[in-house]
Amino acid sequence: MINVAIVGYGNVGRGVVAALGNSADMKLVAVFSRRPEQVAKQFKGVEVLNTEKFSRPKGLRVDVAILCGGSKEDVPVQGPMFAKRFSTVDSFDTHADIPRYFKKMDSISKKNGSVSIISAGWDPGIFSMERVLGHAFLPGGKGFTFWGPGVSQGHSDAARKVDGVMDARQYTLPIETALEKVRSGKTPDFTKRQMHKRLVYVVAKKGADKEKIRREIVSMPNYYADYDTDVVFISEKEMAAEHSAYPHGGFVLTSGTVGKGSRQILEYSCKLESNPGFTGSVLVACARAAYRLKKQGQAGAYTMLDIPPALYSPHSPEELRSHFV
Amino acid sequence: MINVAIVGYGNVGRGVVAALGNSADMKLVAVFSRRPEQVAKQFKGVEVLNTEKFSRPKGLRVDVAILCGGSKEDVPVQGPMFAKRFSTVDSFDTHADIPRYFKKMDSISKKNGSVSIISAGWDPGIFSMERVLGHAFLPGGKGFTFWGPGVSQGHSDAARKVDGVMDARQYTLPIETALEKVRSGKTPDFTKRQMHKRLVYVVAKKGADKEKIRREIVSMPNYYADYDTDVVFISEKEMAAEHSAYPHGGFVLTSGTVGKGSRQILEYSCKLESNPGFTGSVLVACARAAYRLKKQGQAGAYTMLDIPPALYSPHSPEELRSHFV
Repeated sequence: MINVAIVGYGNVGRGVVAALGNSADMKLVAVFSRRPEQVAKQFKGVEVLNTEKFSRPKGLRVDVAILCGGSKEDVPVQGPMFAKRFSTVDSFDTHADIPRYFKKMDSISKKNGSVSIISAGWDPGIFSMERVLGHAFLPGGKGFTFWGPGVSQGHSDAARKVDGVMDARQYTLPIETALEKVRSGKTPDFTKRQMHKRLVYVVAKKGADKEKIRREIVSMPNYYADYDTDVVFISEKEMAAEHSAYPHGGFVLTSGTVGKGSRQILEYSCKLESNPGFTGSVLVACARAAYRLKKQGQAGAYTMLDIPPALYSPHSPEELRSHFV
Repeated sequence: MINVAIVGYGNVGRGVVAALGNSADMKLVAVFSRRPEQVAKQFKGVEVLNTEKFSRPKGLRVDVAILCGGSKEDVPVQGPMFAKRFSTVDSFDTHADIPRYFKKMDSISKKNGSVSIISAGWDPGIFSMERVLGHAFLPGGKGFTFWGPGVSQGHSDAARKVDGVMDARQYTLPIETALEKVRSGKTPDFTKRQMHKRLVYVVAKKGADKEKIRREIVSMPNYYADYDTDVVFISEKEMAAEHSAYPHGGFVLTSGTVGKGSRQILEYSCKLESNPGFTGSVLVACARAAYRLKKQGQAGAYTMLDIPPALYSPHSPEELRSHFV
C-alpha cells in the first residue's frame, strides 16, 4: 500500500482524493492544509495537519506527498519544504521557471534520498511527453500545440481585474481551420492569432461602461492583444449556472516526413470535462511512479519525460506485456 | 556517434536507413543481409555482411543492431542470435508470443550485458504506451484501439492465397460512427464487426470465378468472417498504379470519468503515408534509447513501456526541460 499525503485541498486536491479512491494500491493518510480545522470536517480516519506548522505525528508513514496548490505562490515554497521529508509530486507549470525549479528540487531530493516528480499533469506533463515523442519519432518534423476549448484561469483572472468587472470566465478556443490545415499535412508558421481565439464571459458591475470594459480586455497585452477576442456580457445567475465547471483540453500534433517525403501525422488530444479532476488523476499515477522509482534506489527530480510509462500503471510488467503491448 | 547495424534490407530497413540520415548522432556502419552481394551495390562506406554466416570484421564497432525482418520467420531467429553480440531493437509483433520472446531476449541480453528493445514501432510500440498511459491516467476507464485506414499485410497475404487470385491488397477501415460514439463520451462493448470493416482489391487470374473468390474471401475465418468485407476486382495495372504504397494509421482512445462523473477522453492517433517508413523511424529512436540505457549500466529486454521518453530524443535533458516541457 502506497501512503499518500496531499498538500492543499482545493479543486486539484479533490481530484487527487477521488483518483486515490479508484486506486486499490494507494491510500490517503494525511491532508496538509492552511485551514486544518475546516478541512478536518470533511475527512475521517485521515490526519489533517497544518501546512505552516509542519510536524509529522509519530507512526504516520507518508510515502509520497502530492502538492495540489498553485504554481505562483504555493508550489515554489511547498516543493522544497516537503521534498526535505518525502517523495513529492507537483504540477508546477510556470514554464520559464521549470529549469530552475528542477535544479532546486533535484538537489534537495538527492540529499534526502527521495524522488520528486515536478511539472506533472496534462500540460506540462502528458503534452510535454507527446511533444518529445513526436519530435523523436519524426526527426525534422514540426510540432503544434493547440489548447482548448477550455477555461484558462490566468486569462479569467486578468479579465476580472479590469475596472467595472465583477466576474469573468475566459474560454481558450483552438481555431478549427488551423487544426485542419495541420491534419491535412500542411505545416505553416502560424501567428498566435491564427491558432487560438478567446471568448470571455463577463458579469459587469452595475452601471459600468460595457464598451470600455470590452476595449480594455481585448487590448490587454500578453493576455489578449495578440488574439481575436469576443466579450459577452451575462448575468451573475448565468455565470453561476453555465460556467462553474472547468473543462479543458487540447491537441499536440507532430507532422513530418520519412523516406522519400511520405507525410506522417501524429496527434494526441484530450477532452476534459474537469481539468482539475484529470490533473488530480495524473498526479496520483505519478505518485505511484515516484514510490516505485524510490524503491528502485533512485533519488532526485524527475519530469514525466524521465519516467517509463509502465511505472504509472497499477499492473505488473508481466500483465502489461500480456494485455497492453 | 552511435554505430548502428541493420539486419535485413526490405521496406522497414529502407525506413531505418532514411531515418538514420536525419539523425546527426547516429551512423549506419553495417548491413546484414541474406543477399549481401545484391545489397552491397546500394551502399558505399558501409560493411555489407551475410546474416547467415555471421562474422564481424575486426575494428567494426556496432552499438545497436536494428532487426528489420518479419515477426514470423526472421526476428524469432535473428533476435536471440544478434542479442548475443549487440544491443538490439526489433518490431516483433506476434502479440501472443511477446511474453515468451521477452523472456528469451531478457536472459540473453542480461548475460551479454546489452539492452534489447523488443516489439517497437507504432503497434505494438507507441500504441502499447498510449494504452497503458490512458489506463493509468483514467483508472476504471475503457480503452479502444481502432486501426486504419491502411494496408494490412497479413490480410492481403490471406486473400492472395485464395484460388484464382493473382494479387490482393487489403485495407482495414475503422468505422467512423463507432469512433464518433467513443469521442462523444459513449463506451459501448463493440463487436469486431462494429469497429472495423475490410476492403480488398483483387486482381483475378484470367478466367477465374470472381463470385467464388469473393465468397471465399468474405467467409474466411479469423481474417474476414467477423467483419463486413467489400471485394473489388481491379486490373494488374490499377493495382500497380494505385496500391503500391503502404499507408496505415489508427487511434487509441481511453474514456473514463473522474470525480463526480466528469467525462475525460484521451485520444492518440497516427496517419501514416508510409507504415514501414514510420516504423523504421521509431526503431531508430529506440536504438538511441537502447544505446543510452546500456551506457547507464542497464542490461536485459525492454519494451517501449519501460523506456523514459527523454531517452528517444536527440536533445539533452536540459534542452528538453527548457523547450519541450
